[in-house]
Amino acid sequence: MRKTKLKDIGEFSLISSLQKLIEDSAPNNLDPQFHLISGIGDDAAIWESPQSTQLLTTDTVVEGVHFNSINSQWDDIGWKAMTANLSDIAAMGGIPLYCVISLGLNPDSFTSDILSLYTGILEASNEYSCRVVGGDISQSAPEFINIALFGYCSQKPLTRSNAQIGESIAVTGNVGGSLAGLKLLTNSQDKALSSLTNLERQAVLRAHIRPHSARIHEGRQLASAGVRAAIDISDGLYADLSRLCDASKVSAKVHQPLLPIDKSLKSLSNQEQSLLALQSGEEYELIYTAPSSLVRQLNNSLLTSSTIIGEIIQQVDQSVIILDENNIQRGLAVNGWDHFIKQ
Amino acid sequence: MRKTKLKDIGEFSLISSLQKLIEDSAPNNLDPQFHLISGIGDDAAIWESPQSTQLLTTDTVVEGVHFNSINSQWDDIGWKAMTANLSDIAAMGGIPLYCVISLGLNPDSFTSDILSLYTGILEASNEYSCRVVGGDISQSAPEFINIALFGYCSQKPLTRSNAQIGESIAVTGNVGGSLAGLKLLTNSQDKALSSLTNLERQAVLRAHIRPHSARIHEGRQLASAGVRAAIDISDGLYADLSRLCDASKVSAKVHQPLLPIDKSLKSLSNQEQSLLALQSGEEYELIYTAPSSLVRQLNNSLLTSSTIIGEIIQQVDQSVIILDENNIQRGLAVNGWDHFIKQ
Repeated sequence: MRKTKLKDIGEFSLISSLQKLIEDSAPNNLDPQFHLISGIGDDAAIWESPQSTQLLTTDTVVEGVHFNSINSQWDDIGWKAMTANLSDIAAMGGIPLYCVISLGLNPDSFTSDILSLYTGILEASNEYSCRVVGGDISQSAPEFINIALFGYCSQKPLTRSNAQIGESIAVTGNVGGSLAGLKLLTNSQDKALSSLTNLERQAVLRAHIRPHSARIHEGRQLASAGVRAAIDISDGLYADLSRLCDASKVSAKVHQPLLPIDKSLKSLSNQEQSLLALQSGEEYELIYTAPSSLVRQLNNSLLTSSTIIGEIIQQVDQSVIILDENNIQRGLAVNGWDHFIKQ
Repeated sequence: MRKTKLKDIGEFSLISSLQKLIEDSAPNNLDPQFHLISGIGDDAAIWESPQSTQLLTTDTVVEGVHFNSINSQWDDIGWKAMTANLSDIAAMGGIPLYCVISLGLNPDSFTSDILSLYTGILEASNEYSCRVVGGDISQSAPEFINIALFGYCSQKPLTRSNAQIGESIAVTGNVGGSLAGLKLLTNSQDKALSSLTNLERQAVLRAHIRPHSARIHEGRQLASAGVRAAIDISDGLYADLSRLCDASKVSAKVHQPLLPIDKSLKSLSNQEQSLLALQSGEEYELIYTAPSSLVRQLNNSLLTSSTIIGEIIQQVDQSVIILDENNIQRGLAVNGWDHFIKQ
């Protein structure tokens, strides 16, 4: 029998198999002082320690996959790697504290580039008084940056699995810009984006290369206000909302006309705008669910305001249903991202 | 002016520069609830949280640098990657609790190999009731495995910087086998090792490929007994003892005839045995310093007994001085490992 390769089964099937392996062999004599609340399957692991709820997350970026030093500055690469981790803590309503950084570096790299990479990492971490406390350096080509980030929650953490039927679905900020920026970076003559002005092009390129800070303050505000379910947009609104629904065993209706689309994309057709908004990853916005009255109330105080895009419904076949302006279901060809299966 | 490359300055000079950059820009408004005791520069970072002393460490292995799937089984690669991290917690006298694992994988890899890799990781972590609580998977060739491990101390942690003048230096178990195994793995006809019997060859190959468990119990016993300074042997006794001395601002005298050398190497010349013992990395034994009376007392109870190899002296030019059987300083050509400078 032919042995299965990762490119046959894909990233998510591999993760399921690994999760099963881990759970089947999990030690049952864990330290009762540090009670595990949630392991694999959320933006960060959660455990209760004496007097605090603690969080641990990790994220890696690989040259040629997540970044390309030919078309990005090293400080931007560092900023974004750190922001991806901070965003996972934001999605739990947590406070980032300490991180360890592992670099895989090419011996032919310039020292000044690595210092610049670190400068970007520190710009992002210092914004939240988060401190680099250790790391590891190896030789590797392609280069990679791995960050593991420890934090804590002063309130009940936001999780993916707490969305309730009837709650509204809201998104902070706006989306779509990062994917448009990536498309322009890959092909500056991209036809679908030819209507963008130079200023709009600069804005979406920046959204991709140097995204805004992780929504740490907003995550804390949500948790304080009693919101219970959230996820950050790292793989795309559609893919990440699907994960939240699957974890909560519910489905979502999303009203396409309500999507808060990056205003730099306003010259595109509605269809193009929506596809970008639903598929754009690395946005580092938060999707959360709450009663609509709470969302409206939160919008008076949230540092970055949010938009209601739909509602949580009973679980059906599809995790996320997209409805057009006439409330008719749209069969949008939304792609997710898989590290091993090429689309 | 020509820009400096990593291969010009080496790993340790890069780490110094990064450490300075991090310290110069460190936020001074850290959360007082989680007081940082020690950041970069020890086997793990240490902070005091309400009611416990917590630890965080990370370690990466890269294909072709740290492991080679042609001559190792995947479960052994996983075991060793996890053991390297557990050993960092052992060196602090800590208890490992939760870890997150980041894999960089080739789409052409066999799924069964990755499951086998994880089986090895879990064998090592389950031995200490340590649990995998999250991770991240990316596409990468060469493949890599990064682990970040969280733990805590129930006593005052062992650190690199606490060695005191006059204390004895002791090492758990024995050393030298891992490097001999690596040499045989690279060249099974290695002339220097031609006197080894088949059984001895198997023993040193195993010491390299599937080292013993991390010395978690021993680290805790040391911390309980009041030992204050330790480091694990990951880069070699000479290199790691040098780091402990530098961090403690002392030097070490090591008596070559006292080195606890792997008995599989007994057919080699004294000189060859000593060189292997001093340079062999990935041994995952603990070096610690303590009054000689305490070391003797500990040896009645330590799960893996230890051997006194020398003593801590006032800081001199050289961090570690090797003395032969006549107490004469030996100019052994001991090499460390640097990820960027080829030897």
